[in-house]
Amino acid sequence: MATPLFFEGLTVQTQSHDYPIIITEDAAKNGSMAQQVAPYITGRQVLIVTNETVAPLYLSAFEQALAAHFTVRVCVLPDGEQYKNQDSINQIYDALMDAHFNRDVTLIALGGGVIGDMTGFAAASFMRGVNFIQIPTTLLSQVDSSVGGKTGINHAQGKNMIGAFWQPQMVLADMSTLKTLPARELSAGLAEVIKYALIMDVSFLQWLESNLPAMMALDLAVLGEAVKRCCQYKADIVAQDERESGVRALLNFGHTFGHVIETHQGYGNWLHGEAVAAGMVQAAELSQKMGWLSNEEVARVKHVLTLANLPIHPPAIAVDTALDLMGHDKKVKHGQIRLILLKSLGEAILTNDFDATLLTDVLAAHST
Amino acid sequence: MATPLFFEGLTVQTQSHDYPIIITEDAAKNGSMAQQVAPYITGRQVLIVTNETVAPLYLSAFEQALAAHFTVRVCVLPDGEQYKNQDSINQIYDALMDAHFNRDVTLIALGGGVIGDMTGFAAASFMRGVNFIQIPTTLLSQVDSSVGGKTGINHAQGKNMIGAFWQPQMVLADMSTLKTLPARELSAGLAEVIKYALIMDVSFLQWLESNLPAMMALDLAVLGEAVKRCCQYKADIVAQDERESGVRALLNFGHTFGHVIETHQGYGNWLHGEAVAAGMVQAAELSQKMGWLSNEEVARVKHVLTLANLPIHPPAIAVDTALDLMGHDKKVKHGQIRLILLKSLGEAILTNDFDATLLTDVLAAHST
Repeated sequence: MATPLFFEGLTVQTQSHDYPIIITEDAAKNGSMAQQVAPYITGRQVLIVTNETVAPLYLSAFEQALAAHFTVRVCVLPDGEQYKNQDSINQIYDALMDAHFNRDVTLIALGGGVIGDMTGFAAASFMRGVNFIQIPTTLLSQVDSSVGGKTGINHAQGKNMIGAFWQPQMVLADMSTLKTLPARELSAGLAEVIKYALIMDVSFLQWLESNLPAMMALDLAVLGEAVKRCCQYKADIVAQDERESGVRALLNFGHTFGHVIETHQGYGNWLHGEAVAAGMVQAAELSQKMGWLSNEEVARVKHVLTLANLPIHPPAIAVDTALDLMGHDKKVKHGQIRLILLKSLGEAILTNDFDATLLTDVLAAHST
Repeated sequence: MATPLFFEGLTVQTQSHDYPIIITEDAAKNGSMAQQVAPYITGRQVLIVTNETVAPLYLSAFEQALAAHFTVRVCVLPDGEQYKNQDSINQIYDALMDAHFNRDVTLIALGGGVIGDMTGFAAASFMRGVNFIQIPTTLLSQVDSSVGGKTGINHAQGKNMIGAFWQPQMVLADMSTLKTLPARELSAGLAEVIKYALIMDVSFLQWLESNLPAMMALDLAVLGEAVKRCCQYKADIVAQDERESGVRALLNFGHTFGHVIETHQGYGNWLHGEAVAAGMVQAAELSQKMGWLSNEEVARVKHVLTLANLPIHPPAIAVDTALDLMGHDKKVKHGQIRLILLKSLGEAILTNDFDATLLTDVLAAHST
């Protein structure tokens, strides 16, 4: 087994247990993936959940290596956000029941955020909760959905409406999987990377303005550094507020606007990260109208998103439609829309104390 | 509002929060049900989940009283264990989404164990967890499923395979609801009452031998005393072991055998309590073969069940079928069947250290 070029880790602290995130490269290629996750599998039963895109790339070698030590079954789901639903969860349950697996089973999510969210929810709900491990193979899932324990599926009327907080036993992020990621998905992941900078750390924004070209060129060491920083930002927030009663909500910056885009366009037509990118522009525009950001700072937000080849204009959505879709968002409290806005670059707040006409102005500017 | 004849309470301690169980009578009849639950509803949104049997009895007055203070919606499901499935959960989700309810919602389960388990799981999984309240209207749910936070649904291949641990905000047990309960369901509830005596407290067994005739005659004060004792037994166990990694498993006495009966016969043909009753006889018989109970003690187990008009003979099930169905039970660990057996009356243990041929003997005696 070749030594990975880099191998770094951090620990996420949660109420139920602490778990490691290991950031490495070439684990999939040199066969070390199974060796790295094996110590975190407590029973003898393993169900690998993956999709039709990822399976041909990484499944065979991983499954064979695990099968030397465990009883391994595989559940291959169709690829895409439109399959993040109850039917897919039922397929996972069926695979577990058909294998006669029980509470000792460990589920392994091998894929992007959709696979991770669904596998996590299946683990949370099978026999009232079994172990799971995340192997995120997209940048988005490496920096976002694999950290913090949010799991779930979509409801026909809303995204991520069904789910649970359920923490993995470990996360293995192999940077080399990004080499097979479509460019559009790499960009979508960078939207969440940029989000951390905008809400938490203006010095990271500066770092990104310098390093995004290298990341776009798939410099794995630079990508690994970005992933580690993002996981650390998120781990710090999750340790403070696991169930999102306070500061964790700031991670949803751009997401309320973004959910409107995703719901209106139908899941899967805009990638999540693309919708968040355009949503962050709208949130920045509202922050500017509140007098918190200058026009130049809004332009800087747009510029950094452009460096990552991300959209900065949402699709045309009528104001009433957008407001109605916002009313379905989980972040609505007592019927009032609450938004995450920027007090300055690197500092976000959750507030319902904004002028509704300013929100309407922002939506109206993108309504045609 | 009339003063209830009795009004007693206890507190259940759990990892997430403590909550009260209030045992009273005539709350449904005198309209105080809404007043008693209202202090435990934190938001303004309420979804009452009930079924077609219970709704005509108690829903209207309860809903109207709540509607004075809250936005109330109702989800009426068909009655029966065969509807404890994903379709029913989806109906609850749909009702929540159609009402535009959000994280502030409180779900109220008005009905028996099936309604309680499903409402609890919907609450656990809607928007990754919202509040819920239990109003159990059957003896079984008053003494068992409304205490301790186990929620869930059945899978086509196994009972309670999908679910979560999720604790209610409060439980209101109105003894007078037992007056409208079919006699067969009252008996089924008594199976769980008797279970507590057999596994935990031989003096309670003696109390039951004296008081079961009064309970069968619907003496609400005696029933209320029994419910309070059972809830206290269960609360003590849940406080020690919420997630069933140890002592809580003892509450499944009779259930592994019982699950075989329920699964083999199809959910709903044998009531859960009836299957548990026959299953407890089988567990007692195996305990006798292990040399832990005398023949007279097994006879005493059968006698107390007979006082409650419960079955003491399981249906005919072939040995191989029974063993195969046991292999699907959640209590299987590392592929070995573990059973709860009686070391003596009032003392249970969870063990896989029994002679497999003795288990086969017990099953064979009931195979034709």
